[in-house]
Amino acid sequence: MVRSSNLNVFAAAAKRATNCDGNLYVNLFRRGKHTATATATNDVDIVNEPKEPLIRTATIPGPKSIELIKELNTIQLASPIQLFVDYESSIGNYLCDADGNLFLDIYSQISSIPLGYNHPALIEALRDPANTSAFINRPALGILPPKDLVDRLRASLLSVAPPGLNEVQTMACGSCSVENAMKAAFFWYQTRIRDGREVTREEMDSCLANQYPGSPYLTIMSFKHGFHGRTFGALSCTHSKYIHKLDVPSFDWPIAPFPIYRYPLEDNERENKATDDQCLEEIQDLIERFNRKGRPVAGLIVEPIQGEGGDNHGSKYFFNQLQKIAKSQQVVFICDEVQTGCGPTGKFWAHEHWELDNPPDIVTFSKKMLTGGYFYKAHLRPDQGFRIFNTWLGDPSKLALLERVIKVIKRDNLLESVKETGKEMLKGLKEAETRFPGLVSRSRGVGTFCAIDFVTPELRNEVIKRLHLKGIHCGGSGAAALRVRTTLTFNKNHNDIFIDRLHNVLAELNNS
Amino acid sequence: MVRSSNLNVFAAAAKRATNCDGNLYVNLFRRGKHTATATATNDVDIVNEPKEPLIRTATIPGPKSIELIKELNTIQLASPIQLFVDYESSIGNYLCDADGNLFLDIYSQISSIPLGYNHPALIEALRDPANTSAFINRPALGILPPKDLVDRLRASLLSVAPPGLNEVQTMACGSCSVENAMKAAFFWYQTRIRDGREVTREEMDSCLANQYPGSPYLTIMSFKHGFHGRTFGALSCTHSKYIHKLDVPSFDWPIAPFPIYRYPLEDNERENKATDDQCLEEIQDLIERFNRKGRPVAGLIVEPIQGEGGDNHGSKYFFNQLQKIAKSQQVVFICDEVQTGCGPTGKFWAHEHWELDNPPDIVTFSKKMLTGGYFYKAHLRPDQGFRIFNTWLGDPSKLALLERVIKVIKRDNLLESVKETGKEMLKGLKEAETRFPGLVSRSRGVGTFCAIDFVTPELRNEVIKRLHLKGIHCGGSGAAALRVRTTLTFNKNHNDIFIDRLHNVLAELNNS
Repeated sequence: MVRSSNLNVFAAAAKRATNCDGNLYVNLFRRGKHTATATATNDVDIVNEPKEPLIRTATIPGPKSIELIKELNTIQLASPIQLFVDYESSIGNYLCDADGNLFLDIYSQISSIPLGYNHPALIEALRDPANTSAFINRPALGILPPKDLVDRLRASLLSVAPPGLNEVQTMACGSCSVENAMKAAFFWYQTRIRDGREVTREEMDSCLANQYPGSPYLTIMSFKHGFHGRTFGALSCTHSKYIHKLDVPSFDWPIAPFPIYRYPLEDNERENKATDDQCLEEIQDLIERFNRKGRPVAGLIVEPIQGEGGDNHGSKYFFNQLQKIAKSQQVVFICDEVQTGCGPTGKFWAHEHWELDNPPDIVTFSKKMLTGGYFYKAHLRPDQGFRIFNTWLGDPSKLALLERVIKVIKRDNLLESVKETGKEMLKGLKEAETRFPGLVSRSRGVGTFCAIDFVTPELRNEVIKRLHLKGIHCGGSGAAALRVRTTLTFNKNHNDIFIDRLHNVLAELNNS
Repeated sequence: MVRSSNLNVFAAAAKRATNCDGNLYVNLFRRGKHTATATATNDVDIVNEPKEPLIRTATIPGPKSIELIKELNTIQLASPIQLFVDYESSIGNYLCDADGNLFLDIYSQISSIPLGYNHPALIEALRDPANTSAFINRPALGILPPKDLVDRLRASLLSVAPPGLNEVQTMACGSCSVENAMKAAFFWYQTRIRDGREVTREEMDSCLANQYPGSPYLTIMSFKHGFHGRTFGALSCTHSKYIHKLDVPSFDWPIAPFPIYRYPLEDNERENKATDDQCLEEIQDLIERFNRKGRPVAGLIVEPIQGEGGDNHGSKYFFNQLQKIAKSQQVVFICDEVQTGCGPTGKFWAHEHWELDNPPDIVTFSKKMLTGGYFYKAHLRPDQGFRIFNTWLGDPSKLALLERVIKVIKRDNLLESVKETGKEMLKGLKEAETRFPGLVSRSRGVGTFCAIDFVTPELRNEVIKRLHLKGIHCGGSGAAALRVRTTLTFNKNHNDIFIDRLHNVLAELNNS
């Protein structure tokens, strides 16, 4: 019964997809055979996508999206809406909007779609009767977990834990993951200071009144241009765009410099190394200064690649030295992999590229992982219950989906595919630099996590607009970069289309 | 096809349920007819639950839960775990644990289950092909919403919006709802102060460095014993238990007194009114004091009933006066209905009991609403995009589930049922006071949102333990209260079982 009803669903999806893009694709699966049972993951293949984008409207957003934006604007501020999307008709790496425009998606919902739209593995997870309860009975995970929680954690998060990190805490979103990772750092700092003594009555009472010593003057060090979320703790560590922070009270915590390199890297090794060393020296100074003035640095939080603040990459040398400083100063090293985690750099976790002797103390995740949370070293486990806690603490239904995502990543060697596609992508971006040196520069990337800078923010915005009109859905990073954030199933054929249309747009602008 | 496969699922659930509790219940539905199509909600009835709890193990948690706690403890701190739960076999108001114990649930996952476990309406929502995409294609809701978002918001959140509030912002959880509601208050305060002038370069630059004036010295007033979440902003407004706050840096924001009444209310009207007036005077003073010292109060956040900090109720008089103070001081009034919202007080929103001339400025929600978020007055809409924003901004699949929940609440007149059951519950609690005046006091409640105090925290904890052994799953509030947090389908029959077993436990303890 389940099998039949699933096939019906697929047939309906195929019908909708056909409605959306005419006759660009008819068969929904690359291989003909498809058995939608719970254990049939190996028989399922990725969807057979259209061959190329198709734009039907003269403007983007089209008239239907514009109409829906107006309607939504009666309920909430709708000005940031780019498109209303027909998710039923979207497929794989192709996003179909309400007007029937079909975009090749290199933005993937701000980097949060792991396999593509309507992937059969996720439809299966949804239809699997073994998952029904997870979708409709959301538990208070920290006190009343489902009896299969340990199995689910092992089959999902723990199966991809960063080497050396064996504990994990789930959370509902990226911001909450960051906030709780920082709390874990503070708990550890104070536990170390207390050195076994009991919590005093003064500490208990003062913390309830938001006062010292129960609420200590501890700090978390973050980095210029970094982004870690928009709740009050996370936002105090975010320094990418003023519009995120303006008017919000903030913790006065230390903000360290992050290296901004010259490209191409191979031609600027000496200068970039000097940049690294200068940043590292300032970081060391900053920690010591805050420690001296009674506002000790309990932790630092850093992205492997600053994915909102301009796609700024730190070198392997920089991060290895940063970890050494953190260790020597007893500062908890929090690596924020909300955007870089789950494969887009060609390794499951971006920090694996650094080849550290031992992993960061905490690694946060969300987005493509479908659930928020963080991995951590055993000493960062809180000393008592209910210190890291909230009602939901995540959502088992997201673990059920993630389990299938991970199976597909492994089965289809998607990390290898990302590496191969990423090489082609970077080559294509560098060729754009060679062809249009007056327009673009600083091509950079690991895996498909790539970016290229434009001479002005205005030019970047114009290019994004024109790419939309050519059927490439994309977005920016920082002031003047185009950022590429694809799914893990984005392959060389997709890349050819993207690079071709990027070059076309640059050629248009070069000639105008 | 869907119909048949759903029936299969139900049959499987019935089989599992039978395995769990022997032959306590055989038929899954009160009425025999059941058509599980997408539009057949009206034909579906609530599940036919077991007649009473059944405890099979000598201790709670039982051996299987204990084994699983040990296993989970290799992955994360598992000491707060109460039970591992067999959610597949749980049904309606009955929670089945991994050992096959069947509890009548008066805690409902910290008040977050609206209709009961495995409710047919939710199974339908899950199986409805129209919802497939919502479950597997989680969008970046703030830029690329699904084309049916407006319809979904109207059918779910807007259909139960507090009277007078027509705008809504979704969020993924309660803490994020609170954090963003506070940000909206800060934005409004500064917009008002700016009075049309442009944001200065100094404001832009200073906020990126976490400094004044871009990061202003504004504050949010919260209340003693209040609970609003555990992220840094929300936690600065939380004052219920020290273990939530200890070691976490905090904003030094004003903390106001919340009235603690004498019970029974009808015998203590004069004294309680005096308590209200004293609190109100201090609140007024506190706002003026913070305003004078350059740390203006932009908003206040308050629960209608302090649901974590001891089930402290504020009177209609108190809240009406509080709103007047807020209005006169231009302080945004944020009513946190994360725990009280969605019907447990017998009105959809607890603040409706206050009969305010106009609603609170912001009403936050989560838990039983299945999605986080907040309703707000139009002037609190941010003046620019991306100020209230994150990647997911909620989850359309939760709106799909909520839509069905609301239909059932309306169809089955569940708010009326809550009122009726609540009256019986409060009567039963008051009878306990009369019978055991040396053990319990201060019975209080609105709807089924009830509590009763014990003479000591130790007695409260002992009662909870014994109630578990008698098949009542329950929990505490504050230092010495038992809190009742049922689903909306908890009826008089359920209540009879709870009250009977509570009296039995008290009788045992009274005689020991």
